[in-house]
Parts: sequence; C-alpha cells; structure tokens
Amino acid sequence: MSKIKATNVTWHEGHVTREEREKLLSQKGVTVWFTGLSACGKSTIAFTLEHALVQRGHLAYCLDGDNIRMGLNKNLGFSAEDREENIRRIGEVAKLFADTGVVTMTSFISPYLKDRDLVRQLHDENKIPFVEVFVDTPIAVCEERDPKGLYKKARAGEIKGFTGIDDPYEAPNKPEIVIDTSKVSPQEASIQVIEYLASKNLLTA
Amino acid sequence: MSKIKATNVTWHEGHVTREEREKLLSQKGVTVWFTGLSACGKSTIAFTLEHALVQRGHLAYCLDGDNIRMGLNKNLGFSAEDREENIRRIGEVAKLFADTGVVTMTSFISPYLKDRDLVRQLHDENKIPFVEVFVDTPIAVCEERDPKGLYKKARAGEIKGFTGIDDPYEAPNKPEIVIDTSKVSPQEASIQVIEYLASKNLLTA
Repeated sequence: MSKIKATNVTWHEGHVTREEREKLLSQKGVTVWFTGLSACGKSTIAFTLEHALVQRGHLAYCLDGDNIRMGLNKNLGFSAEDREENIRRIGEVAKLFADTGVVTMTSFISPYLKDRDLVRQLHDENKIPFVEVFVDTPIAVCEERDPKGLYKKARAGEIKGFTGIDDPYEAPNKPEIVIDTSKVSPQEASIQVIEYLASKNLLTA
Repeated sequence: MSKIKATNVTWHEGHVTREEREKLLSQKGVTVWFTGLSACGKSTIAFTLEHALVQRGHLAYCLDGDNIRMGLNKNLGFSAEDREENIRRIGEVAKLFADTGVVTMTSFISPYLKDRDLVRQLHDENKIPFVEVFVDTPIAVCEERDPKGLYKKARAGEIKGFTGIDDPYEAPNKPEIVIDTSKVSPQEASIQVIEYLASKNLLTA
C-alpha cells in the first residue's frame, strides 16, 4: 500500500459523489442536530452516541462548543446577529461533514426556530438527511444540575440573555426525536438515536 | 446491523480520539493544502487525487470554491479583511475534517504567506499533519488557459486586485510538494502527492 500503481487506477477529474464515499464507509452521511437548554444533556448524549457509533464501526464526529467556539467561530460573540451567524456556520460545516459521509452530531443550544429551520432547509436542498433531536429536559432539572454555575449567574443578573432565563428557547415543532434526560440515561438516549438512524437505513449504504 | 445490542457496547461519555477514528479508517487525518495562481491546476489535481484516493479505499474530501464560497463563506467578499477571514475559516474547517481522520484537500489561491502560515500553525498546535502543495505553474501558462476569462478581465482592468496581475502571490518558502502543471499531468501530480502521503505513513493507521 506504500506505492501507488497507476495501472490499477481509473483516472477521473470530476468530483467524487457522496454515494461513492457512503459506499466506502458502509453508512450514509447525516446531521444529527441536538437542541435544548444549557445543561439539558445534549453533549453527554452526543459523545456517548459518538462512542457507540465508532465502536460499531461507524465514522462519527461531534461538533460542539469546544471545537467550534474556540476555533471557527472564535470571532463571534453572543449578540443576536452573532448567534445567528454561529448557527449558520455550524449548519454549513455539518452539511460538508455529512456530504463526506460522516454521521455528524452537533451539540449547541440553538434556541431559535428560524436558525434551525434554515439549517434544515440547507440539508433538504442538498438531499442530506437531517435529524433534529430535541433534548427536552425540564428547566428545573437543568438548573439544578448547573455544572458551570451559569444558571446561578443568570439568575443573579451576572449573565444577560441567558436562554431559558431572560432569552427565549423556541422548542422545535416537529423534531425527529425527543429525549428527556430526567427520565432516560445517556445510554438509553443513544440507543434511541441509533435505532432511529437504523430505521431510516442510515447505518448501511 | 439494524438493531443495536446494548450488551455489545462499552459505554463512554468522553470524546472519541482522533486515533480511534484513524484506526477505523486505516489512514491518518491530514490536510493537503493546494496553493497557486488562478488556473494553475489546483482543483484539477485535487479532484483527480480525491478520486484516486477513494478508489484505493481512502476517505478523502475536497474543500474548494464551489462548496465553500457558496456556503460557509458566502458572506465574505474580496477585501483584504475578507480574504484573510476566508482562509482562516477554511483552515479551521480543514482542521476539523483532518481531526475526523479524513484526507482533506483544500483548493484555494490562498496568496498570502501569513494566512497560510496561520493555518499551518493551527495544524501544528493540534498535531495534525499539514502538507502544503505549491502548484507552481508559470503565470503565462495560467493566463493562456484562462478558462473563466478572468485574466483577460483583470488585464482590461475589469477585475481589481487579481492575484498575479495587480495583487501579489506570495510563494511558499518551504512547501512539502511543488508541482508545475506545464510539465506534469494531473495524474502524475496525484501520484506525486499519494507517494508523499504514503512515505509519511499517512495512508495507514
């Protein structure tokens, strides 16, 4: 495998199709978009799911605050305009990942219907499956968890425009999957998502 | 494969490592950054390479004007500031792709040393291999090809700030690979890149 044999290769100049890459990976490209309040359990489910998928031989990748807010979107703040641009860019990158054939998870509060709908539309236009997962954990539970003390600061007025406190969370109208992490574990939630993906034939090609 | 068996899965909540994904793909994540004048042959080589890699069972993806300028970077123009932000975002996305284990090609003029060096630095910091491919085709050859009539318009003053005409192209100081498409075919150039990747053990894991 260290030397290419030109004689074994049929040369093409055009783009490789998504279908060719999906065949290589034995899976379909898809964006699994987690949305919900801070501390609702989005990232915990996404990373549990990522492990379960990779363990089953699927290529999966999670876009989240750590790898997006510190990198691609580090020049964005939390103004209305920047929040919109934040989600727009994440949607565009998720689309590229899914076009590569990757099971792509995104884990962001993404509180506004309009922004999420634009991302869904982008996927629809490109015939890329989009699975919206509404992590519908009651705010009282999220606030009690409060691992980073953000709810506390928001209640004290130290953080302005905090989703669920003084900025709205607009729940999805027709999410593909709804999960309440006060009732199910991250493992159970992951199984729910994997079973959904399998039911749509997204884990074969 | 249609139903997950929870009993077969060891559950983890942390991130899957790049190494785990690379093992799954039997390759290493890498960014292959093509740089050079308009019509120098960057995209033709990148897409020829993409085909050759996928045909050999490698997951490869090409970021280029078509999927970036019309999507992620559609809100950027051609001012100095926007050109810089264009390359910054592409560098960040390439890093994420390579972190997924994908052989990631980028095909943009990317005329400024500083911008390309920032992308290289970003990869170095994340221990992700970065291969700069300088497509060093003489400008006379590029201008004669001129498939979109851009050089003609630039010479006529209808396009301002055109790289190589009235905006500088800053050649790389130490590119990993140099290709002159007036001397080699896209196929020969692809073989050159594949042999380089193989020599660095990037096509195994």
